[in-house]
Amino acid sequence: MIIVLKPDSTDEQVKHILDTIEGMGFRHDLSRGEKQTVIGVIGEEDRLREAPLQAIPGVQKVVPVLKPYKLASREFQAEDSVFDLGYGVKVGGGNLMMIAGPCAIEGKEILHEIAVAVKASGANVLRGGAFKPRTSPYSFQGMGEEGLKILQDVGHELQMPVVTEVMDPRQVELINKYTDIFQIGARNMQNFDLLKEVGSMNRPVLLKRGMSATVVDLLMSAEYIISQGNSEVILCERGIRSFDPSTRNLLDLAIVPNLRGLSHLPIVIDPSHATGRPDLIPSMSLASIAAGADGVHIEVHCNPELAKSDGPQSLLPDQYDDVMKQMKQMATMLGKTIPAPVAK
Amino acid sequence: MIIVLKPDSTDEQVKHILDTIEGMGFRHDLSRGEKQTVIGVIGEEDRLREAPLQAIPGVQKVVPVLKPYKLASREFQAEDSVFDLGYGVKVGGGNLMMIAGPCAIEGKEILHEIAVAVKASGANVLRGGAFKPRTSPYSFQGMGEEGLKILQDVGHELQMPVVTEVMDPRQVELINKYTDIFQIGARNMQNFDLLKEVGSMNRPVLLKRGMSATVVDLLMSAEYIISQGNSEVILCERGIRSFDPSTRNLLDLAIVPNLRGLSHLPIVIDPSHATGRPDLIPSMSLASIAAGADGVHIEVHCNPELAKSDGPQSLLPDQYDDVMKQMKQMATMLGKTIPAPVAK
Amino acid sequence: MIIVLKPDSTDEQVKHILDTIEGMGFRHDLSRGEKQTVIGVIGEEDRLREAPLQAIPGVQKVVPVLKPYKLASREFQAEDSVFDLGYGVKVGGGNLMMIAGPCAIEGKEILHEIAVAVKASGANVLRGGAFKPRTSPYSFQGMGEEGLKILQDVGHELQMPVVTEVMDPRQVELINKYTDIFQIGARNMQNFDLLKEVGSMNRPVLLKRGMSATVVDLLMSAEYIISQGNSEVILCERGIRSFDPSTRNLLDLAIVPNLRGLSHLPIVIDPSHATGRPDLIPSMSLASIAAGADGVHIEVHCNPELAKSDGPQSLLPDQYDDVMKQMKQMATMLGKTIPAPVAK
Amino acid sequence: MIIVLKPDSTDEQVKHILDTIEGMGFRHDLSRGEKQTVIGVIGEEDRLREAPLQAIPGVQKVVPVLKPYKLASREFQAEDSVFDLGYGVKVGGGNLMMIAGPCAIEGKEILHEIAVAVKASGANVLRGGAFKPRTSPYSFQGMGEEGLKILQDVGHELQMPVVTEVMDPRQVELINKYTDIFQIGARNMQNFDLLKEVGSMNRPVLLKRGMSATVVDLLMSAEYIISQGNSEVILCERGIRSFDPSTRNLLDLAIVPNLRGLSHLPIVIDPSHATGRPDLIPSMSLASIAAGADGVHIEVHCNPELAKSDGPQSLLPDQYDDVMKQMKQMATMLGKTIPAPVAK
Repeated sequence: MIIVLKPDSTDEQVKHILDTIEGMGFRHDLSRGEKQTVIGVIGEEDRLREAPLQAIPGVQKVVPVLKPYKLASREFQAEDSVFDLGYGVKVGGGNLMMIAGPCAIEGKEILHEIAVAVKASGANVLRGGAFKPRTSPYSFQGMGEEGLKILQDVGHELQMPVVTEVMDPRQVELINKYTDIFQIGARNMQNFDLLKEVGSMNRPVLLKRGMSATVVDLLMSAEYIISQGNSEVILCERGIRSFDPSTRNLLDLAIVPNLRGLSHLPIVIDPSHATGRPDLIPSMSLASIAAGADGVHIEVHCNPELAKSDGPQSLLPDQYDDVMKQMKQMATMLGKTIPAPVAK
Repeated sequence: MIIVLKPDSTDEQVKHILDTIEGMGFRHDLSRGEKQTVIGVIGEEDRLREAPLQAIPGVQKVVPVLKPYKLASREFQAEDSVFDLGYGVKVGGGNLMMIAGPCAIEGKEILHEIAVAVKASGANVLRGGAFKPRTSPYSFQGMGEEGLKILQDVGHELQMPVVTEVMDPRQVELINKYTDIFQIGARNMQNFDLLKEVGSMNRPVLLKRGMSATVVDLLMSAEYIISQGNSEVILCERGIRSFDPSTRNLLDLAIVPNLRGLSHLPIVIDPSHATGRPDLIPSMSLASIAAGADGVHIEVHCNPELAKSDGPQSLLPDQYDDVMKQMKQMATMLGKTIPAPVAK
Repeated sequence: MIIVLKPDSTDEQVKHILDTIEGMGFRHDLSRGEKQTVIGVIGEEDRLREAPLQAIPGVQKVVPVLKPYKLASREFQAEDSVFDLGYGVKVGGGNLMMIAGPCAIEGKEILHEIAVAVKASGANVLRGGAFKPRTSPYSFQGMGEEGLKILQDVGHELQMPVVTEVMDPRQVELINKYTDIFQIGARNMQNFDLLKEVGSMNRPVLLKRGMSATVVDLLMSAEYIISQGNSEVILCERGIRSFDPSTRNLLDLAIVPNLRGLSHLPIVIDPSHATGRPDLIPSMSLASIAAGADGVHIEVHCNPELAKSDGPQSLLPDQYDDVMKQMKQMATMLGKTIPAPVAK
Repeated sequence: MIIVLKPDSTDEQVKHILDTIEGMGFRHDLSRGEKQTVIGVIGEEDRLREAPLQAIPGVQKVVPVLKPYKLASREFQAEDSVFDLGYGVKVGGGNLMMIAGPCAIEGKEILHEIAVAVKASGANVLRGGAFKPRTSPYSFQGMGEEGLKILQDVGHELQMPVVTEVMDPRQVELINKYTDIFQIGARNMQNFDLLKEVGSMNRPVLLKRGMSATVVDLLMSAEYIISQGNSEVILCERGIRSFDPSTRNLLDLAIVPNLRGLSHLPIVIDPSHATGRPDLIPSMSLASIAAGADGVHIEVHCNPELAKSDGPQSLLPDQYDDVMKQMKQMATMLGKTIPAPVAK
C-alpha cells in the first residue's frame, strides 16, 4: 500500500502518520521529494486495507497495491478452473456451457417442449426460474417449489443439468434438492448472507454481475462464496446500467478478456438480459464466443407473446437453433468444445 | 397503455394485435394515420404491464401511461406522510429526522460517547451497524447481536430512537427486538424477500436507494414493503454510480423535489455515503435542507483514524456540531422543525 | 406524436391543447378513457418535435413516434451503403475497412515503418493524427501540416488510403488536400459547425461516437453531415463512459446490430480507444468481426514505450499481425472480404 | 509519479525500467518489498505524465501524484478569483451571478419583455442564444448576428451584462463585438481550438461542463483557456448523463465544494439544463445557493408554449420572481451578495 501525502503536509503530520503505521504493526518506507512525499507501507494487505489511513491528517491519497481478492485470482490458481455440471457437461478450459430455457417455469408441458427443442439445438444446460425477482410486487412471482419439481423432472427426463435462481438464504436448502446449479441474480450479487449460504453448499454457482458492479466487485462476491468452501463459481455478465435507452442494459463484452487475466473462474455471457432485444441476441452470442467466453445464456420460449415474464426478449426455438449452428461453427474454429450431456 | 405500430405493419398484424388485446380481456382504440398507427389499450394497467405486447409482430413500442406503483404514490395519498419514530420524534410534513452515529457499532463506550455528542448537537435518531454489508469477506462484519444490545442500551439511556441495518430475512425477528427503525441498505434495495419480511413488521423502514436504481425502482421497492402492510417507509438517497472517481458516489439531490411530486413518503439524504468525503459533507447537508429533504443522515466518529469501517468519511463531533448549527438556522428559515426526543 | 394527458387534466385544458395543436396547423385524434386520455397529433414530425407541447398545462408526457433522423435511416435506404475509400478499398456491404497506424504522426521514418508492417498484415487504411485533441494544453499537440504531408507521402508510396482527424472547421480545407478520409473525433461529435463543414466536402467521414452519446445522438450527427450533401459517413464506436475504472472506456459492441437495424451506414469498431489495454484488443477485435462490424480500427506502434501519444494502448506490429490473421479467418467464415489496396 | 511493478516483474525488467526513467532525464527511488515493488519517479510531472511508462514490460500501474492543471488550481492561487462582468456586476468571493433569459433569442420585443422581468426580480446577467447547438440539423439554429444585435441592444438599454454562446472559432471575433461574456456550451467543452480562441480574447468565459466530463476534465478545459492568457473562466455545472430518464440530466451539486477545494475559479449552477423540469428548478436553485455556488443560471420565457427552443424547461417570469425571492433570503443568511448592475 502506498500513501501519498499532501504537498503541504508538515513534518509533525509525517511523524504522526509513521507512528500510526508502526502502531498498527506495519513497516514503512519514506520517500520525501521536493514536490511529493510518498510512504510505502509494508504488511498484510488485508489488514492494511481495513486501516482508515485516509482519515489521518496530511494524507492525500491511499493507493492499494495488491488485489483485494485472493482465492478467485489468477495468482492463486494459474490454470483455468474446469467444473463438472452434471451429466458429463463441463465448463471452463475450452468447454462451453450453453444455457437455454424460459425466463420462468410456467408449467410442465411448456417447459418440456422448450427443453426438447433447445437440447436438440445443442444446449447443454436447462434454465428456468421458480422464484422470480420481479421489480413489482404485483407481478408473477414464480411457481415456487412446484416449479422446482417440474424443472427437476424435465432435467431428469432429458438428461440435462438444470440451473435455477435462489433469492433468499432460507430457500437454499429447498432449492438444493432440485437443482444442479444455483443461480445468484444480478440484484443479489451483493446479498452477502445469500452468498455465504450458497458458499456452504456443494454445487456450482452461476453468479450474475450486478447492474452497477465493477469487475472487482464481481470478483469480491465470488470470493465470498469461495471463502466459505465452495470453489465452483461461474461468473456471468448480463449487462450493466447505461444512459442509452435503446437497449435494456449495456453488454460489457470486454469483461471476458479482462476477467481472463484476473481470475481462473469461467465466464459466461447472457445476451438476453444484456440487450433485452431478440434482434441483437444472435450477433452478440457469436461475439461472445469470439471474445473467448466459456458459455452463452439465452432465454428461449415457444410463444413469447404468452410468456409470463420477459417474453419480449426471448428467442423462438427456431431462432435459437440458427444461432447455435453459428456458435458451434465458431467454437470449432476457435478449438472450443460444447460438451453434450450424457446419460448417467 | 399505448401501442405504437411499426410503419410497415400489415393489416393482418393489426388484426392479430387487436385480437390478442381482446383475448386478454382489454378494450382498444385504433388510430390509423398515414405515417403512424397507434392503439390505445384500456384496462387494468397492472395486468396490461405484465402482458408481453412488445413480443407481438408489428409492434414498435409499448408506452405505459399509468405509474407502476400505487400505495407509494401521491395520487394514492395527497398529503405528506408523517411517521412517529419513537420518543416523540417525527419525520415528514415539516419534521426533520437528523440521523447521526458511527458506521459500525464497535463497543459500548465509543457509541455512548458519540451518541452523547450528536444528541447535544441536535441529532434526534442514533445510527450504528451491527451487521455490516462489506464488499470483502475478510473485512470486519459487525458485532452482531452484541452490537444490537449496545445500540438499544445507549438509545434507552439517551432517550433517542435508534436505526440499524438488516441484511437477511432471518435477522428480522432478532433485530426487531432491539431497534426502533429498520434500515435496508443500498445493496439490498431489490432483495425482495427481505423487503417482504420488513413489510410484515410494525416499524418504520429507512429504505436506501440502490446504486443504480432509478427513482421508479426505488418507489417499486417501497411498494413491496407497503403492499405487505407496513406503510412507514422513509426513502433515502445515498449516491449513485458515476464515471467521476473524485467522489465515492454521485449525490442525486434533485431526487428530493422529484420524489416530492411522485410520492407522499418522506425523503432523507445521506451525504456521508453519497460523497465519501468529509470536506463535502457540510455544504451538501445544507443543500439537502434547502432542497426540501425531510432529514439528513451523517456518519460521526470520535476518532475516524481508528474506526473499524468507513472512518475516512466520518465527521468529528465538532464538525457535526458546526453543520447542525447551520442546518438548524436554515430549517428555521424554511419553516421546518427538528423535533427533539422526549423522555417516554 | 402522442400526447399523454395528466390524470387530473381538466376539460378546459384539453380544449386549450387541441386549440394549440390546431393553431400550429396539425390535426389531432382524441381518445378520452376513464383513467387515461391520449391525443394523437398528426402532421410533419419534424415540426411537431420542435413544438414545445410538453410546456402546455395538463400535458403529462409527449411520445415521439417517428425517428428524428431520415437520410441516415434504414427506411430512407434499405440496402447497406458501400463507400469507396481510394485505391480500390471499399467499406460496407461485406467489405471490411481495416484501419491501423500510430496515434500521432511523429516523423516520416517511424510512420513508414509502421505502415509497411500493417500493410503486410492486411490493413487497408493507414491512420495517423497531425492535429491531436489532447486533454492537457501542455501535451504534444501534433505535427500539424508537416505531419499531414508525411501521412500523404507514406500513403502514396504504399498505395494506401489514409485517414486523419480534423478538429477545427478552419482546418477542413487544408486537411482536404492531404487526406482520403476525414476523421471526426469523439470530443467533436456534436461540434455542429465542424460537421457542417465536412458535410460540404466530397470525402468519406469517419464519425466517432461521443463518450456519452446515445445511438440516436450519433445518427443525428451523421444526419448533420449527410444533410449538407456528403452522404459518405462511416460510424465508429470507440467506447463510452462507465463507472468501472478497469478499462479506459466501455466498449458497446451491441451497437453493431443495433445500428444495422436503424441505419444503412457502415459501422467500424475501435477497440484501442474503447479498452485502452493492449491485452484486451485482440479478443475484442475478433468479437467485433463476429458481431458484424464493417471494420476494425487499431493503433499500432513499433515502440510503444517511446510513442508521443497513447503509447500504452498500442499494439506492436507482431501483435497486430497475429490479430489480423485471426480476423481474416473469421471474416472468411462469415463471408466477408478485406479488400486489398490496388495501385491507381 | 509512482510506478507499481507487477508482482512477477523480473530483475531485468526492473533494470530496464530504471534505465528508461534515467534516459528520460528523471531521477528514481526504488523500494523493493517482498510482495510489492514500487518506484518513485522524480522530475517535472508534466513531462512525466506524457511518458508512456505504462507501456514498459513489468509495469502494473502508474499513479500520478501531482495535479495535471496548474493555473486553475487552488495551489496556484489561494484566494477566490473575482471577475468583473460589466455594469459593476461581479462574480466570485461572495458575489453571486444570477443569469436569466430565454434559451434562444427569438426577437427584440420578446427578449426585452423577458429582460425587464428578470431584471426586476434581481437577475444581474441576461442570457440568450444567437447560435444554437441543436441535436438535429432540422431544428431552429438561432438568429445569428441579428440575434446578437438584439441581445446587445437590450443589454445596453437595461444596463445589464449579457452572455451568449460561441460554437465555432470563426465566430469568436464577431461575437466579441456584441457580448460581455462568452459561453462555451457543454458539447464544446473539449473543442480545444475553440477554447484556445476564446483564451486569446479579453472577456470572461462561462465554461459549461461536458455531459461526461470529470471534474478534472473540466479544470483541464479551463486550463486551456487560461494558458492562452485569459484567466477569467467561470465554471458551470449543467448536469451529466445518467441512467435515470426521469430528469433530462443529473445535477452533480457536490461539484461546488469539490471544485472549491481544487480551484480558485467561480462555479455557477444551471438547474434548467440539469433537470429539464420547471417543477424541480426552484428547489435546486435554492440548494445551489446553500451548497455555496457563485451563481445560478435559469432559463425564463414569457410564453414557454411558444418558445422556439427548450420551452418546456423554462420558468415563467412569475415563477422566476418567486425563486429569486427565496434565493436572496438565503444569500443574505449566508453572507453573500447579489450585485445589482449599475449604469456606466
